Amino acid sequence: MAHIQVPEGAPGILGPMATSPESTKALRELAEVLLRGPNTLTSAERETIAAYVSSQNDCRFCQLSHSAAAAEHLGGNYELINRVKQDYATAEISDKLKSLLAIAGKVQKGGKHVTSEDIAQAREQGATDKEIHDAVLIAAAFCMFNRYVDGLDTWQPTDPNDYREMGQTMAHVGYVRPDWEKRGEAA
Amino acid sequence: MAHIQVPEGAPGILGPMATSPESTKALRELAEVLLRGPNTLTSAERETIAAYVSSQNDCRFCQLSHSAAAAEHLGGNYELINRVKQDYATAEISDKLKSLLAIAGKVQKGGKHVTSEDIAQAREQGATDKEIHDAVLIAAAFCMFNRYVDGLDTWQPTDPNDYREMGQTMAHVGYVRPDWEKRGEAA
Repeated sequence: MAHIQVPEGAPGILGPMATSPESTKALRELAEVLLRGPNTLTSAERETIAAYVSSQNDCRFCQLSHSAAAAEHLGGNYELINRVKQDYATAEISDKLKSLLAIAGKVQKGGKHVTSEDIAQAREQGATDKEIHDAVLIAAAFCMFNRYVDGLDTWQPTDPNDYREMGQTMAHVGYVRPDWEKRGEAA
Repeated sequence: MAHIQVPEGAPGILGPMATSPESTKALRELAEVLLRGPNTLTSAERETIAAYVSSQNDCRFCQLSHSAAAAEHLGGNYELINRVKQDYATAEISDKLKSLLAIAGKVQKGGKHVTSEDIAQAREQGATDKEIHDAVLIAAAFCMFNRYVDGLDTWQPTDPNDYREMGQTMAHVGYVRPDWEKRGEAA
């Protein structure tokens, strides 16, 4: 039972979202622009940042759903996303993405943890100001989404396989749809 | 100097916002619905939650600008908002708002810190499910805004008086305006 009354069987963020259409519209538009809008970072890279921050915040629903979305963008490479969450430094991802994950990890702890050295390191790996901006904002946004999901004690399926279909829809259909509340996807 | 290039003289969140119009639109709409949309919680109460969470996150720009907005909703009662931030338990606010601030303070630490007892306490003080939902989401959203502002090391005026005009506009005009980027207000 969640802390507030939500539709039965609605997983994670979909429960509270169903109770508040106005805020949900803004949250879904934010997820769409951050994770699927035009960008020099791929959606796979941005969903990987989302999944990593959610795993650092120990939010099961967000980390499993956005891991699934990231993997779907990579043709189903779930193993790579799992390795990033375990230890991104040794995962087979670009040095630029590693430097952005380092910044995102600092943001997860608190904005003031990000240092000039973290930024210089990302620039050395070719990150643009917009890419640094987006890494910070995606990390910050998932500190919000994670707290929304866990702060209301929502129901969160435990089997990673339960998130596969969700991840497919998140990756290929997106976060803003008129019929979102009838489906099982996350923002 | 902020971590990324932003317009000179733009305080706090307005710097990075100016560099990213698409995400800014979603962020501004979120602030508007959470803090000024139709609600059984007053805008003063909601801005107080925003200011309190921002003070717990030690984000000067957000806590001073939203303190100013809260005070403006209360006819200029800056003293009350300062007392809430120092020790809300002894401030002259309703027991319901105190119980929502307790929940918001837990959300600031992490979603899982919120307990069934915190929720029961808020219900005893008359808080509805929607009010509990909104307290959680406002607190979560300011964990995002604060990290966005500090994670990019934005310029933040130190004198609280510099935030008065900002607070007046935030309270009485709002967060969504076509000419926002020409002014000096926060989201």
